[in-house]
Amino acid sequence: MNLLVDEGFDINPFCGGRGVCGKCRVKIKNNPPEPSRSDTKILDPRELEEGYRLSCQFNVESELEVVLDEDGEITGLTTGVVTETELAPEFKKACIHLEKPVLEDPRDFVRRVHDELDTVDISLMGLKELDHVNKKKPFTVLSREGVIVGVEAGDTTKELFGLAVDIGTTVVVVYLMDLKTGEEVDVKTFYNPQRRYGADVISRVNHSIQHKSGLGELQNVLLEGINRSISEICSRNGIENESIVKTVVVGNTIMLHTLAGINADSIARIPYIPVFSDALRFSPAELKLEANPRGEVHLLPSISGYIGADVIADMLAVKFHTLKSVSNMLIDIGTNGEIVLGNKKGIVACSTAAGPAFEGANITFGMAGTTGAVSELNLENEGKAYYKTVEDKPARGICGSGLLDIVAELCRLNFIKPTGAFYPLEEMTSWQKSLMTENNGNPAFRVVGSEESASGKDIILTQKDIREVQLAKGAIAAGISILVEEVGLDYEQIGTVFLAGGFGNYLNPSSAAEIKMIPAELEEKVLRIGNAAGAGAKLALLNKNLERQAKKIKELTRYVELSVKPEFQERFVSAMEF
Amino acid sequence: MNLLVDEGFDINPFCGGRGVCGKCRVKIKNNPPEPSRSDTKILDPRELEEGYRLSCQFNVESELEVVLDEDGEITGLTTGVVTETELAPEFKKACIHLEKPVLEDPRDFVRRVHDELDTVDISLMGLKELDHVNKKKPFTVLSREGVIVGVEAGDTTKELFGLAVDIGTTVVVVYLMDLKTGEEVDVKTFYNPQRRYGADVISRVNHSIQHKSGLGELQNVLLEGINRSISEICSRNGIENESIVKTVVVGNTIMLHTLAGINADSIARIPYIPVFSDALRFSPAELKLEANPRGEVHLLPSISGYIGADVIADMLAVKFHTLKSVSNMLIDIGTNGEIVLGNKKGIVACSTAAGPAFEGANITFGMAGTTGAVSELNLENEGKAYYKTVEDKPARGICGSGLLDIVAELCRLNFIKPTGAFYPLEEMTSWQKSLMTENNGNPAFRVVGSEESASGKDIILTQKDIREVQLAKGAIAAGISILVEEVGLDYEQIGTVFLAGGFGNYLNPSSAAEIKMIPAELEEKVLRIGNAAGAGAKLALLNKNLERQAKKIKELTRYVELSVKPEFQERFVSAMEF
Repeated sequence: MNLLVDEGFDINPFCGGRGVCGKCRVKIKNNPPEPSRSDTKILDPRELEEGYRLSCQFNVESELEVVLDEDGEITGLTTGVVTETELAPEFKKACIHLEKPVLEDPRDFVRRVHDELDTVDISLMGLKELDHVNKKKPFTVLSREGVIVGVEAGDTTKELFGLAVDIGTTVVVVYLMDLKTGEEVDVKTFYNPQRRYGADVISRVNHSIQHKSGLGELQNVLLEGINRSISEICSRNGIENESIVKTVVVGNTIMLHTLAGINADSIARIPYIPVFSDALRFSPAELKLEANPRGEVHLLPSISGYIGADVIADMLAVKFHTLKSVSNMLIDIGTNGEIVLGNKKGIVACSTAAGPAFEGANITFGMAGTTGAVSELNLENEGKAYYKTVEDKPARGICGSGLLDIVAELCRLNFIKPTGAFYPLEEMTSWQKSLMTENNGNPAFRVVGSEESASGKDIILTQKDIREVQLAKGAIAAGISILVEEVGLDYEQIGTVFLAGGFGNYLNPSSAAEIKMIPAELEEKVLRIGNAAGAGAKLALLNKNLERQAKKIKELTRYVELSVKPEFQERFVSAMEF
Repeated sequence: MNLLVDEGFDINPFCGGRGVCGKCRVKIKNNPPEPSRSDTKILDPRELEEGYRLSCQFNVESELEVVLDEDGEITGLTTGVVTETELAPEFKKACIHLEKPVLEDPRDFVRRVHDELDTVDISLMGLKELDHVNKKKPFTVLSREGVIVGVEAGDTTKELFGLAVDIGTTVVVVYLMDLKTGEEVDVKTFYNPQRRYGADVISRVNHSIQHKSGLGELQNVLLEGINRSISEICSRNGIENESIVKTVVVGNTIMLHTLAGINADSIARIPYIPVFSDALRFSPAELKLEANPRGEVHLLPSISGYIGADVIADMLAVKFHTLKSVSNMLIDIGTNGEIVLGNKKGIVACSTAAGPAFEGANITFGMAGTTGAVSELNLENEGKAYYKTVEDKPARGICGSGLLDIVAELCRLNFIKPTGAFYPLEEMTSWQKSLMTENNGNPAFRVVGSEESASGKDIILTQKDIREVQLAKGAIAAGISILVEEVGLDYEQIGTVFLAGGFGNYLNPSSAAEIKMIPAELEEKVLRIGNAAGAGAKLALLNKNLERQAKKIKELTRYVELSVKPEFQERFVSAMEF
């Protein structure tokens, strides 16, 4: 598993390599080893026979050939709401050609450049490069807010790029932006390599607590992943790493801590205090990020330990903080569910431990929204399940939006009680029964039959899967209700409900309302904005003024700690009902 | 020679190791090698017999023991005019003890520190240290202008020091200052190790032009020298290098270029353009300076290629730019002679290639103002020479102030004609004759007889030595006259004439007027301010606002290039007369 993750393959072990989730299985082509105890527990005899093994339980001792489950590009996570912004990057390039110095004009070379470009200062590196460049020929000056930071021979003004990086717990998205035009040049998406230490942030923090080198490992694999994607994106667009002068990073607070090499353990335990939450600015060299060392890396500010820069970027993307009269709501459903509510006058925010169910974790056939994931489902009375898969490929599993649809249909058509339990088979109609199967002696819903699935096995939804959905949606519903109360609003007074996150982009609002994840009153107000965090990062990259806006959003936002609210537990339990 | 210089011995080879000045002689104790051609040319037979050899001409091939000419500490160069300043350093330390975080107060740790100290930002290094320090115990925060740059366990607030460094062409002075009290803790003076590449800046620039690694060598030996003195000064005061948070450097423009690793060759050739002349600010780590890497190194601004930050520091020390009604003059005599004239409304400045005669170079018995240097001389009619030596030790040579006195007395008492030539012996009186001797068939003045000198040899002043003085004083006198004309002043309108530089501190104004180095009208106005450059550097170190003042001085000052003045050559030639 580690080898495969290291090499950038899309292995997605939710359990962090503990041998219990089965998501890391590979087919070993020649002479597969004896199955381990985990193998026999997780994989069925036919799989074992075919050579499938859990790669997390397997030590590679000699060369061998493995076949991975077919996996597509991660899609649907890179496009967000499109907002326009003025182009105002800190970094500028200009090509100049100095006049030959004469005795009558004793200005030093730096001054001559300042006088051409209205710059006012120079870094030591910039000075050294100005010293070395042939000053009789045209050369290009890279400056940051009036400070010369680099000098290159010839005209390289076209080579001015930036990166917007959105570090999700599960998926990392890297956008390459042209800072001269504001255009998105390319985008690269990859699974967060920290997954090998656990699907959720807490498992990863625990790894860093339990292993002395744990924090370094979390940082290194993440940086390696980002550096690898920078290389790839640069080479396929024919640009040099040195052309990347600014990188804006968003992500949840723990991701930003691990990226910067800062312990996040204080976030993982009461009272959940981050080490930092303001914006950070440093040199790529300080981080060993393979971009121009004369440039900068900016981390946007976070709000609290569980409301990160990604949520601030979401708000930035939809100008959440600019409306005066109406309050809006924004829900970012990723591994956690963050909810914010407010307007220019003030914003409240909370975070709910929704868990990664909608990202595919802890769900028997859960998977990310990649090729072959069941992403929509309809049950017509007395019919079979009509489902849609990503790219219309044979079904391999269930992604978040599919999961939501399935549970919503099971509610609507009385497969399950308000408590979440399947009705006894004897109380079901015959067409209902025809869609049911069993799993380890318990009832389960057959989403895709073995004759249609990619693996030739039934794709099912178990009772346990439904419990996971209840926990997730219950947390979000309780958060929404408490936040609305906190502000003293009625649902009617809320303008728009922005749904952000890769999953949010495909979520069917009526399904969300059906299972009471969001109140019925808000169903019509939902606007899906996709990866708004990435969009916000891109905006801040292109326009330095928006970083000040991010700071303003942080200052406007008051964090509401749900765990200290006496009513939260009770509200959460009742919100788990359908 | 290189070995001795590397090890920090005070070897002072003016010729840069070309075997012609004889200043690097050492006594080789056992089996001295055959004398080289340079040895026999420079050293006399008795010296050769005693085992003296020129160390620059000698390759060490096995272990050997050498005796150096006795040499004292360099004195008289470290004390400057004393000026008081408000204590306002950028860097501050404060010790804090955070309260235990509780759920009701979700502020992150950085914010808690900000709230205690009114800081507003943090560096990545500061963040990492805050992360690692035990936040349940008191810790110390190092901040720079509101930015946290470092965190240390316990209370280290007392450990807050700075360095003021004055890099002269010949001598480097390093002052250790306590930034909590403003007190000077210690000072260390050493010969500029670049001397091995030549006594004057042009020889050193030529070295960097002629050798590919030349610039690196100039930078390295200088940095090694500074780092060695930092180690020494730290260890003898029981402080850590890490306690040094700010370093302010002054020096002539070429010295500052070589320190920063920037080519100064454009300064050495027409039209004498420096690469930079504004202030520079960078990290000690960028320079490999062994101070706290969280701190800063500041280079004060220069005015032109030949008027450096040392002159701006001189002006800073005497508040040259604050007078409104009266114009003052400042003359800094080092290897070059820099002259500035003006007041709050405007300043003009010029540099004259006075040469290093007053620092002992190119003078037969020239030496720096160290132990045994003849520093004063009086000739009474029909008597012998009454002289004074530094520390009253047996005479070893002649330093700048002694040289000036000797030539002034030779003028006053008609040993030499206005043209600078000795009168023929036959025109001298008998007591005059009794003080004369000869050198390679030419007349010479005996300053100290063999019976009194440390070496048992006469210490003499030759005709060539007098020519060197004429060149030096002629350049300064011509500069003064052109600058005064440039401003349109009479000598009577000038308030004070500040004389700066180690030599300037001991110079006898009446001798300077006698040989017409300064006009007679200015004699009474002379105020000797010693190493004012060092004083100015210390002030800028203690009070950040004075760095803005330095910038203002630079902006106020107009550089006058003497070589483009048609009248300069003629004025220079006539000013060489006595």
